[in-house]
Amino acid sequence: MNWQQRAYCGELDSAQVGQTVQLFGWVDAVRDHGHLLFIHLRDVSGIVQVVFHPEAPFYAQARQLRSEFVVSIVGEVKTRAADTVNPHLNTGTLEIEAKSLEILNQAQTPPFEVSEKGFSGEVLPFKVDEDTRLTYRYLDLRRPSMQRHLVERSALLKIVRDYLSEARFIEVETPVLTKSTPEGARDYLVPSRVHAGHFYALPQSPQLFKQLLMVGGLDRYFQIVKCFRDEDLRPNRQPEFTQVDLEASFIDETFIYSLLEGLIHRLFAHTGVTHLPATFPHITYDESMSKYGNDRPDLRFGWELVEVTDVFKDTSYKIFRMILETGGMIKGMNLKGQAAKLSKNILQEELAKGLIPKLGGKGMTWMKVENGQLDSNIVQFFSEAEKAALLSRMGAEEGDVLIFVADQDRALVHSILGQFRVIMAQRCEIIPENTFAPCWVVDFPLFENSAHGLGAVHHPFTQPQGDITGLDREALLTQKARAYDLVINGEEVGGGSIRIHSWTQQEQIFQALGYTQAQIEERFGFFVRALKYGTPPHGGLALGVDRLVGMLLGVASIREVIAFPKNRMAYCPLTESPSPVSSEQLNDLHIRVTEL
Amino acid sequence: MNWQQRAYCGELDSAQVGQTVQLFGWVDAVRDHGHLLFIHLRDVSGIVQVVFHPEAPFYAQARQLRSEFVVSIVGEVKTRAADTVNPHLNTGTLEIEAKSLEILNQAQTPPFEVSEKGFSGEVLPFKVDEDTRLTYRYLDLRRPSMQRHLVERSALLKIVRDYLSEARFIEVETPVLTKSTPEGARDYLVPSRVHAGHFYALPQSPQLFKQLLMVGGLDRYFQIVKCFRDEDLRPNRQPEFTQVDLEASFIDETFIYSLLEGLIHRLFAHTGVTHLPATFPHITYDESMSKYGNDRPDLRFGWELVEVTDVFKDTSYKIFRMILETGGMIKGMNLKGQAAKLSKNILQEELAKGLIPKLGGKGMTWMKVENGQLDSNIVQFFSEAEKAALLSRMGAEEGDVLIFVADQDRALVHSILGQFRVIMAQRCEIIPENTFAPCWVVDFPLFENSAHGLGAVHHPFTQPQGDITGLDREALLTQKARAYDLVINGEEVGGGSIRIHSWTQQEQIFQALGYTQAQIEERFGFFVRALKYGTPPHGGLALGVDRLVGMLLGVASIREVIAFPKNRMAYCPLTESPSPVSSEQLNDLHIRVTEL
Repeated sequence: MNWQQRAYCGELDSAQVGQTVQLFGWVDAVRDHGHLLFIHLRDVSGIVQVVFHPEAPFYAQARQLRSEFVVSIVGEVKTRAADTVNPHLNTGTLEIEAKSLEILNQAQTPPFEVSEKGFSGEVLPFKVDEDTRLTYRYLDLRRPSMQRHLVERSALLKIVRDYLSEARFIEVETPVLTKSTPEGARDYLVPSRVHAGHFYALPQSPQLFKQLLMVGGLDRYFQIVKCFRDEDLRPNRQPEFTQVDLEASFIDETFIYSLLEGLIHRLFAHTGVTHLPATFPHITYDESMSKYGNDRPDLRFGWELVEVTDVFKDTSYKIFRMILETGGMIKGMNLKGQAAKLSKNILQEELAKGLIPKLGGKGMTWMKVENGQLDSNIVQFFSEAEKAALLSRMGAEEGDVLIFVADQDRALVHSILGQFRVIMAQRCEIIPENTFAPCWVVDFPLFENSAHGLGAVHHPFTQPQGDITGLDREALLTQKARAYDLVINGEEVGGGSIRIHSWTQQEQIFQALGYTQAQIEERFGFFVRALKYGTPPHGGLALGVDRLVGMLLGVASIREVIAFPKNRMAYCPLTESPSPVSSEQLNDLHIRVTEL
Repeated sequence: MNWQQRAYCGELDSAQVGQTVQLFGWVDAVRDHGHLLFIHLRDVSGIVQVVFHPEAPFYAQARQLRSEFVVSIVGEVKTRAADTVNPHLNTGTLEIEAKSLEILNQAQTPPFEVSEKGFSGEVLPFKVDEDTRLTYRYLDLRRPSMQRHLVERSALLKIVRDYLSEARFIEVETPVLTKSTPEGARDYLVPSRVHAGHFYALPQSPQLFKQLLMVGGLDRYFQIVKCFRDEDLRPNRQPEFTQVDLEASFIDETFIYSLLEGLIHRLFAHTGVTHLPATFPHITYDESMSKYGNDRPDLRFGWELVEVTDVFKDTSYKIFRMILETGGMIKGMNLKGQAAKLSKNILQEELAKGLIPKLGGKGMTWMKVENGQLDSNIVQFFSEAEKAALLSRMGAEEGDVLIFVADQDRALVHSILGQFRVIMAQRCEIIPENTFAPCWVVDFPLFENSAHGLGAVHHPFTQPQGDITGLDREALLTQKARAYDLVINGEEVGGGSIRIHSWTQQEQIFQALGYTQAQIEERFGFFVRALKYGTPPHGGLALGVDRLVGMLLGVASIREVIAFPKNRMAYCPLTESPSPVSSEQLNDLHIRVTEL
């Protein structure tokens, strides 16, 4: 292998014209003119055209080349004639005149086309079902677009590491074989062979270990780390996923904001995006719920939720009256300027009767603003005063569409409208392309109601904003946490908190969550103990790598930026995993499979 | 938290004298002079002395400070009087005059001393059993030496990543939840909840995935990755370990040698070691076995094994004659100049009757060269010609000790002498300190005899040096592999090979290993299929990170360079893992524990 002299196909440039180069790669496409043979030669860097002349002693061999054959070619870099330049290739003004050819390996006809561009630069269609792609992932990965995803993922993670190193973070590996957490229902377990009947668990996150590193004085820690969650199947989830996990001591929220804003800027700048705000806006959890219906607001467009409960407090419209009499709320939004796109039929049949029930709603009220008037199937039930107040409250103008959802369940109103807002914005194509709108969601509640009492909204290691000593359940539910989420374009990219560093406060939280002293000791004894030996104030955050990289590269599914993902069934069609194993293996591990 | 203004204790220097600095850290030690209070303040960067004057309003509070309290101190950098300079601290010419003090957290008395240096710079003894250290790992990690290990590990791995990135390698993550391999006896298994009765396995290495990345055209891959092996307990093994895994296409052995030599140079240069040879010597497997008794030669010292079978071919010494008559061998080594250290009593009682049987040997013959003569308890059985030949063959001189082992089992002779050589070199203290002697061990055999037929010496994806078509078992056993190990100071730091890229050759290997066509399909079907679609020539290597970092930092145990290792029993005393889990968890996973 003459690797020392190697040139890369996609990096050849006109300065090299006249030089002889050594290329290695795959035959992307062949065009046999009879008197001349052309191939597109592909390697990880790109494609270059190679021409074989019939007088070459290896011409007969060249004519045997087929797609995906692996070759070594030595050739001279030449300028193409002006009329044969291919503007769709980086190297389109050049071609390689082959001086030697060695076929390093042959290839059977692939189950799908690897080549993404034809000889004229035309984009070749690619319609292959995902399980076929995953079964032949090694061929799927040979496609230039997939190679770009992995190359860029690597480059982006290098930027993360360089950036955090510059900020004095050190990378520390935490265990993969660790302890099952008490809320371990979603833990993957690993039976131990040498400790019969005992199990390791794969970490859902390195939360406790990174806090222990802070207790251990390591000051600033990060890790790009695999985490595991045995969740029910969902289309865009993977049983194993990667996060940038970080934690720092002697800091507060402002450190995390400033650190992450710098990192996000650098990552986006790498992909050519430079319009992000210098500092990211903050939005409280309450405001986000109120205006956007959820805690991951998409700020690329308006369509904020507006409450109109008071407008209808004396309404004669029966449905609204009934809901308001039982303490319900009415909220809506102005689909600005969408009247032309959304016919009454769409509004009534597709949305009010179709989409809204799918989102869990009972119904939707809609009005168009046309000819200076509110127009809908129910507007006749509203008083003039109500209509005027609605127009004013909603900032409604000619061509707008107003929609409203009313329900006793305020959380349901927000949930429906939050989803509706995003779905309709996509449908109406009002979301600007290549635009990124980051924000920090802050002031999360500390606790939420759960089946067994109070539950932690984030996790039980999150520091309260105030002192919770002696608070009752109702008061605890009003407490805010020192937690923050980084949200970009409606996706939660990361989240974290300032942690509890006082062991007495940590015990208060566990008690508020309903743990007895014995349960605290059994479940978190080692951790509470650690807090007693001089724990510094500390906090941190975790970023979802798969989702963030997917967003940076503009792909729809995280599986596009993972080399060997599981499919939607948490199954790997390539290796056929998970799989049955031998009874000897199970015997060794002291377990057996129960009757299925 | 005034993190923006923070200074680091260990980085203060005389240029800052007169400045006011904000410090955060732990109280390393307290010295209360009554009229003056001193503390050593410690953070991740080091230690600085802080002085509290009695007129300070916080003096009373300062007197409450105890070891491991967490504090925030603002103070002025001052020069110490010449007679109070502490030459054992980086910051020993300085002290901080405290202007404010905030106790951020208190600490109970730790179970062992965290401080490693007293006020006079004296090194404090540290004798704590390892399970206590691991139970309180967060305190153990606060010790400056342990912090250095983790900080340097992070720095060294950053060097690896930077180096490989410069060499066009991209980092790709391969799955942790993958398929159990057929030789899966040492696989950790992970039961699937959503696929009842099916199991993932944790990877022993990403071997097949990295080869599939080469099939996928990614050209040069690396990953710093956790691997897992459920081995029987051994003192210096961990169930999970980290390796630098790499693979490249269109390369040969020379690429790997040159790449790794550059990397090893850079890593050692970081630790101040610059004496490594520009290129590392190569030694064949056969030569290494013959001269050093194993395939990981420690080249820091001589004491090569020398065969003397022929010297005794007509001997009248009965023990040798019997062994030689049954086809045995006699080999020895010259413990150069060790006669003074090794008395006859040591040679006979401790070594011949003690150590050698422990190493599996039946006996050892020894001679000292004293007063120009061979002197031992059996030398009277040797002829003058034999003695003269021995002296000459062994290069023996006054003051040397010659030892010999004879056995029918040639492998046993090598095994005994190989271990004996290293143990005795340590005992005789002939190994130069801070010296590193790397080499490449090459020309490994492809196959070895195993219980069921032939076994692969490395793994079945290693390329033979020649064509193995049609070879019988005996001929196969003589074949060499395109495999290489990187050995430094007698430790295997890494190993790899040029892989098979021809699917027909891959099938030949599987057949030679005794697999039927059905077994090949069942176990490796997907992989052999991948090889058929245009696989480039490729090869790679894996480096053991824990061992290499341990060597670079000069520590005895890999547990010194792992943040949260398991103990010698594959158990974590900190989190008490592995542990029993609830029957609900097992039910969810469709498994139960068998009777123990």
